Amino acid sequence: MLFKTDRVASPYCYRCPFNKAKPERADARKYRKCNMECVDLVQQKFERRQKRGKNYAAFIFEPGIQGPAGMIAQPKGWLAKVAAIAREHGTQIVADEVMTGLGRASSSYFASHAEKVQPDFLCIAKGLTGGYLPMAATLTTQAVFDAFLGEYEEFKTFYHGHSFTGNPLGAAASLASLSLLESKKTSQQRVQLQKSLKSLSKPLWKLDAVGDIRQSGGVLAVELVADWKTRKPFPLSKQMGIRVCDFMAKQGVLTRPIGNVIVVMPPFCTTQSQVKKIFTALQAAISATT
Amino acid sequence: MLFKTDRVASPYCYRCPFNKAKPERADARKYRKCNMECVDLVQQKFERRQKRGKNYAAFIFEPGIQGPAGMIAQPKGWLAKVAAIAREHGTQIVADEVMTGLGRASSSYFASHAEKVQPDFLCIAKGLTGGYLPMAATLTTQAVFDAFLGEYEEFKTFYHGHSFTGNPLGAAASLASLSLLESKKTSQQRVQLQKSLKSLSKPLWKLDAVGDIRQSGGVLAVELVADWKTRKPFPLSKQMGIRVCDFMAKQGVLTRPIGNVIVVMPPFCTTQSQVKKIFTALQAAISATT
Repeated sequence: MLFKTDRVASPYCYRCPFNKAKPERADARKYRKCNMECVDLVQQKFERRQKRGKNYAAFIFEPGIQGPAGMIAQPKGWLAKVAAIAREHGTQIVADEVMTGLGRASSSYFASHAEKVQPDFLCIAKGLTGGYLPMAATLTTQAVFDAFLGEYEEFKTFYHGHSFTGNPLGAAASLASLSLLESKKTSQQRVQLQKSLKSLSKPLWKLDAVGDIRQSGGVLAVELVADWKTRKPFPLSKQMGIRVCDFMAKQGVLTRPIGNVIVVMPPFCTTQSQVKKIFTALQAAISATT
Repeated sequence: MLFKTDRVASPYCYRCPFNKAKPERADARKYRKCNMECVDLVQQKFERRQKRGKNYAAFIFEPGIQGPAGMIAQPKGWLAKVAAIAREHGTQIVADEVMTGLGRASSSYFASHAEKVQPDFLCIAKGLTGGYLPMAATLTTQAVFDAFLGEYEEFKTFYHGHSFTGNPLGAAASLASLSLLESKKTSQQRVQLQKSLKSLSKPLWKLDAVGDIRQSGGVLAVELVADWKTRKPFPLSKQMGIRVCDFMAKQGVLTRPIGNVIVVMPPFCTTQSQVKKIFTALQAAISATT
């Protein structure tokens, strides 16, 4: 961000200081023992700001699941609660749905909507063209749009854009991709993919090096650990994530790790047998490598 | 920039406080009367920083001509002088050649090279694909590249990239475009285009509303003024740039203004008769509108 910002903790149930539950062979969001203190932290942040006579202009988050931070899925209800706090303080809501949107990371078309949150700014990209061509868009409200209207000499116009904005080929790919994404058939395919991820990932819990498996829509993350009973991480020098992904690549499954987290995020057109192949390779890779 | 930066004046001969020359019917860089005090300002900035026991990490500029700032062409020698100052202070040089590079804004392939400056970072984009597809690249030295090499756990890697990096279609378009740009024929075409811009823009000096015409390679800018004898600008509310460009559009010539500056920057494939059409339309537009 180009200006001063405040940060507040985002939920990470598996490694949360407020989670008093012992590790189980299940998604930490399910067995966590806490009072959602992470929501209190957001509440306190907004209150402290208000006491200084100011409200935040905007509250920005990745809804449903944080991506490059480690594919960290949020517990149900978190987003609705923190969005309500922002609304109470007159703060605008900015949802980064670059990774999560367009059917990817929730049962809804947008992950915000899965928690009944309607952002003031919705940032989208990857899914727009199915990733084939660069294209991004920022959707906003009429009120925000109107704020940039005025006489020429007032300089209210939002001048900032770039040379490649509205590239015709990217726009054509986006329109074709959106039309596919919105069809009934692909919507059913997404539901089927989410079910497959859920059922086919279950056997991984048998592996000692698997600490957490968290799924959000069509995104699944496996956090590898040196000891599942203590949640002790693998040392970075072991390059465990890279080694597991390298092993999978030799089986014909290409993916990339985020540190010790293995990300399973197959295209929506992935067939049932391809998903099986992914998890067969993943199980073999973890078993052989850890 | 995401961190604290210092700024220093960039040369703008036509509206320079150090230029003691009266306006003439010529490019202000030619008739200016000054001692290149703009270079002294850069020298002073670097010296002040050094007195505080520090040198600047990097010096960033658009070489040859500043783009969105108003197509402001630099006087000959300026870049070589300020780059030498940066080098004396052990400061790395970052050239933003997004607009100027790849044969656009100088007689050289890169505008830095026209002043015999070899940057440590060379930022390029638009010309890479001829503007047809988004593609950008940052070229740097082996020393900078090596600084990002190390053991995995050292986190020396430069992780920052984005999803659309290395897009295959963009890369293919770039390779095709670069091969065209490097051919002898297109190199000759660029020289011809620069000559045409120079000769065909001359008649514009007859118009009272033309204050400055500055050319840098294949980029030409016409600064419109209410009174050429005083350099008095048109009031913004008159939207003079927009009106001139609208008039040109009706003649079949599409361009866009930067405030009161009309930008002529035709594609390298523009024929001689098309360049004539551009200047006929521009002259008619200025005559009819101002």
